[in-house]
Amino acid sequence: MTVRADRILRESQVIIGYTVYVDLVKEFYPQAEFLTTPMRQEKERCEMALKAAQDGRKTAMICSGDSGVYGMAGLVLQMAEAYPDVNVEVIPGVTAALGGGAILGAPLGHDFAVISLSDLLTPMEVIEKRLRAAAEADFIICLYNPSSRKRHDYLERACRILLEYKSYETACGYVQNIGREGEVVHLLTLAELEKTPVDMFTTVFIGNKETQMLNGCLVTPRGYRDV
Amino acid sequence: MTVRADRILRESQVIIGYTVYVDLVKEFYPQAEFLTTPMRQEKERCEMALKAAQDGRKTAMICSGDSGVYGMAGLVLQMAEAYPDVNVEVIPGVTAALGGGAILGAPLGHDFAVISLSDLLTPMEVIEKRLRAAAEADFIICLYNPSSRKRHDYLERACRILLEYKSYETACGYVQNIGREGEVVHLLTLAELEKTPVDMFTTVFIGNKETQMLNGCLVTPRGYRDV
Repeated sequence: MTVRADRILRESQVIIGYTVYVDLVKEFYPQAEFLTTPMRQEKERCEMALKAAQDGRKTAMICSGDSGVYGMAGLVLQMAEAYPDVNVEVIPGVTAALGGGAILGAPLGHDFAVISLSDLLTPMEVIEKRLRAAAEADFIICLYNPSSRKRHDYLERACRILLEYKSYETACGYVQNIGREGEVVHLLTLAELEKTPVDMFTTVFIGNKETQMLNGCLVTPRGYRDV
Repeated sequence: MTVRADRILRESQVIIGYTVYVDLVKEFYPQAEFLTTPMRQEKERCEMALKAAQDGRKTAMICSGDSGVYGMAGLVLQMAEAYPDVNVEVIPGVTAALGGGAILGAPLGHDFAVISLSDLLTPMEVIEKRLRAAAEADFIICLYNPSSRKRHDYLERACRILLEYKSYETACGYVQNIGREGEVVHLLTLAELEKTPVDMFTTVFIGNKETQMLNGCLVTPRGYRDV
């Protein structure tokens, strides 16, 4: 969490979020009233927050990672159109690509693409087109949502597409439960990744041609003429 | 800055960085000795840090944004191979894509690509290939280093490539001096962006097909069936 996010939460009268995230921060902000909604009730959560703010209460909505990256910031801004008196401010955070990248070393040292494998809100053919484009142009690729409650083969299918363009030896890594209890880190090749089952709390990194495993770290040099 | 980065800087005996960044944090960490090297002397800076750490001093190297994204983390890890007694830990931060994105609203609400336009360490044909791939697959695109001391037409050339695939009306934005004095925000179309001169302290955002300008904000909905 950033120093700025912490300061704003200390000043908030109402803090709203998904139950799991609220439970993580509750003890640190005793001044605030906490409101929660379960998963999938994102619109209801935004409405709660906007109504509390319209009532004149200083209200914070919390997400994990960065609220702008597959987070709630966009939805709040869209729904805020109906609440013209509410002033919305987005506070940046550390998204899983950065948090997980730091744990692995420095995989994102050059141009990278972030792709969610969840087809809940995006057609599978759009996801596959993006995987192909990112692989063919040798981006480092960071995958969010590599598994879901209902679907366990997202990552395997993605790896099969990436292997059409990237070598079997491509340096990869993944991190489970970034910065939380049960944090697990793995370095492996793209061929190994294809055969690896991961859960929905995993962030996956696929290197570019230059990415190396160095002393247990995943590192992409900044440029082709570096070091 | 994250709460964790702040805590580590408070505990550091030596803090090393590019002169400009050291000047920004100096007053907050009076316990530390500060060492600096000017721009372009990145290897010397890493060596200084690794030597101080090898001497048994708790040493922090600082960057702007996230040290893993076009930052110094990769170089430190590569050079640390020659210092087997030094234990390197990477602390994640808020890269300009996230910091600038929050100021603009929520442009990075769906799959995105981060591309540096600097051809100092990367051949121009690799950069152009990545621009084409990202545009064709309808990624949101965040551009770093859209201008340099010597070259002022990087952004114009990039926009011309993107316009082969993206509409002239594509919602775009840019932020100068993110989170610093002189912060400036602009929303504009891709056609307007092509004609806009920017400096090297600017981060540029080019939307996907769904990105909208909403009440002075740049917002990309999370999915095609959202709201």
